[in-house]
Amino acid sequence: MTTPAETPFALVDRAKVERNVTRLGEHLRSLGVAQRPHVKTSKALEPTRMVHGGIGPITVSTLAEAEFFADAGYTDILYAVGIAPGKLDRVARLRARGVDLTILLDTVAQAEAVIAFVAEHGEGLPALIEIDSDGRRAGVEPEDPRLLEIARVLADGGAQLRGVMTHAGGSYFAYTPEALRAVAEQERAAAVRAATRLREGGHPAPVVSVGSTPTAHAASDLTGVTEVRAGVYVFFDLVMAGVGVCTLEDIALSVVATVIGRGPGDASLLTDAGWTATSNDRGTSVQAVDQYLGVVTTEAGEVIEDLVMVGASQEHGVLAVRPGAKRRLPDLPVGTRVRILPIHACATASQHDHFEVMAREGEPVTERWERAGGW
Amino acid sequence: MTTPAETPFALVDRAKVERNVTRLGEHLRSLGVAQRPHVKTSKALEPTRMVHGGIGPITVSTLAEAEFFADAGYTDILYAVGIAPGKLDRVARLRARGVDLTILLDTVAQAEAVIAFVAEHGEGLPALIEIDSDGRRAGVEPEDPRLLEIARVLADGGAQLRGVMTHAGGSYFAYTPEALRAVAEQERAAAVRAATRLREGGHPAPVVSVGSTPTAHAASDLTGVTEVRAGVYVFFDLVMAGVGVCTLEDIALSVVATVIGRGPGDASLLTDAGWTATSNDRGTSVQAVDQYLGVVTTEAGEVIEDLVMVGASQEHGVLAVRPGAKRRLPDLPVGTRVRILPIHACATASQHDHFEVMAREGEPVTERWERAGGW
Repeated sequence: MTTPAETPFALVDRAKVERNVTRLGEHLRSLGVAQRPHVKTSKALEPTRMVHGGIGPITVSTLAEAEFFADAGYTDILYAVGIAPGKLDRVARLRARGVDLTILLDTVAQAEAVIAFVAEHGEGLPALIEIDSDGRRAGVEPEDPRLLEIARVLADGGAQLRGVMTHAGGSYFAYTPEALRAVAEQERAAAVRAATRLREGGHPAPVVSVGSTPTAHAASDLTGVTEVRAGVYVFFDLVMAGVGVCTLEDIALSVVATVIGRGPGDASLLTDAGWTATSNDRGTSVQAVDQYLGVVTTEAGEVIEDLVMVGASQEHGVLAVRPGAKRRLPDLPVGTRVRILPIHACATASQHDHFEVMAREGEPVTERWERAGGW
Repeated sequence: MTTPAETPFALVDRAKVERNVTRLGEHLRSLGVAQRPHVKTSKALEPTRMVHGGIGPITVSTLAEAEFFADAGYTDILYAVGIAPGKLDRVARLRARGVDLTILLDTVAQAEAVIAFVAEHGEGLPALIEIDSDGRRAGVEPEDPRLLEIARVLADGGAQLRGVMTHAGGSYFAYTPEALRAVAEQERAAAVRAATRLREGGHPAPVVSVGSTPTAHAASDLTGVTEVRAGVYVFFDLVMAGVGVCTLEDIALSVVATVIGRGPGDASLLTDAGWTATSNDRGTSVQAVDQYLGVVTTEAGEVIEDLVMVGASQEHGVLAVRPGAKRRLPDLPVGTRVRILPIHACATASQHDHFEVMAREGEPVTERWERAGGW
């Protein structure tokens, strides 16, 4: 039986993480561009160290992650969520510790808050301007007049503009290699164009940062880009498999659960892994193949054909034959262990404070990777 | 500004919790039935103490909760998720500490695992049999022959049958006072009928446990029931408001967030509270009024008409005018604080390791309530 003794828990296959990290590392090296991995998926030191073979530049989604990694010796950190003015004190405390923390912004209001802070504290907070490359979430468009206005406010106020950053969230909704390459080129072109406009306006823009797991893998030309951020690829998940950038065999994270009974009419199996263990993410519901709350495998990691996690309450998972599939429910007795492959590895990982890690499939758990929690 | 200095955080209004607890307590006292509150929503000591005015019987959803409450002096605990055989060791360790922990089961296979454990360890593990009152999740139906078979296996093996338990999950989908009363009566009748069958078969069934927040509030007769479990009512949420058992003003939990910018076309506001802070629960999507990922209020708790959280990524919330409503997006500048009322308080609370607590609206945060985490 897979250790530990009790379920549910988050299980990681270290060999798969290494393979995923190596694959993207080789691709990006071939394109001549540096990596600044986004640690928001694992929030753990061990897989992050694999990317650089030690300490290197990273991207974080919370200041708690920044502090966790700073404690472990990381000194070059991009906080890649638009800065809330109330967080500047904590940013400055991290910088005072010797961490070169870069913040992100995309409004004149944020730039004004930053320079007010700089004026008061004499701190030259470095910043990137977020660029909107696909109209999906945040950022200023490359041709938006506000791009230069923000740069001017920062320059006049003594903050340090370092360049631009964009995230092609639209890549999660591209489903062919051609479409993915097109999104990657759109992402690159938007960031490079914005950096060019800044430089033409007399502003420094040494950093041109792009990234998402699909575009990082699909890009075939990153001319003008200085660094690539990708996060979920260390574990991969069913959304990424649906996008086509990995296979089910690449997914390095799963939730181990125990069968505890059957649902009404014996039409489903109940497990002890509810949404507290897997999350309620339904990211594949918009893809060609809906995987509901996750694909079910045996304890040894073999996919059980057409068995999916169709429902969850807080501490109950519901497994059933995929709607429409003509199969009988497999006879998994009470006490049987199964694994649930994650829909969205960031969301599933976020439900756990650590990972149980096996060196490779078939071996026992021998490591425990702690995660940075909270904010 | 609401303390603490940084967002996001989970804010609790203690006065509202007290009001919610008092309301249900008075109702159940008037029906002459005891309470065994389900602590899975708050997983915190302070609101649980309010129910009994001190230590009393509780229901838990994980053994981690059982241990957390046992550490605080709780000794009468029902673990209300069907037992996985691999957890019996830990159950026995809790019992050896002096905690009267009762387990739950609904299959012969679980009963056999329990008696095998009893035979090996000489432990008379007390158990309830889970009854299915509405065909929604788990349990044996009251007339199912397996009910008496499970009781016989337990009796023959020296385990201690304590009675029956049911949870009317269907009450979440009843939307009128009449429908709710009908579900409450169905829940009561199923549990009482199962207990009667056990007693007629010569088995003890001193405990007849029912509960869900909607049925606990709707029940007008609980004859034959010995205890009621309810959980989410301490905080309430938008699903419960949609069911009609509370109003928005009763909701005691919210997530405080900061505006960090605007989305594409200035059609949305972005905040620093993504699904890590609010959860991705979409429980109101099947109700008459879809509240998306949450209703937005001012920092002072006043509902901002037709502003809802329509989307989330890991650390970004997206606020927009309710689809179909003819309003302009309110002008909330960068740095403005808002609150998000939870769709499902259990899920939102589960994203936090503690609550920041104010005595009542308008007062600063003065308490911190810790939560039991993990499993």
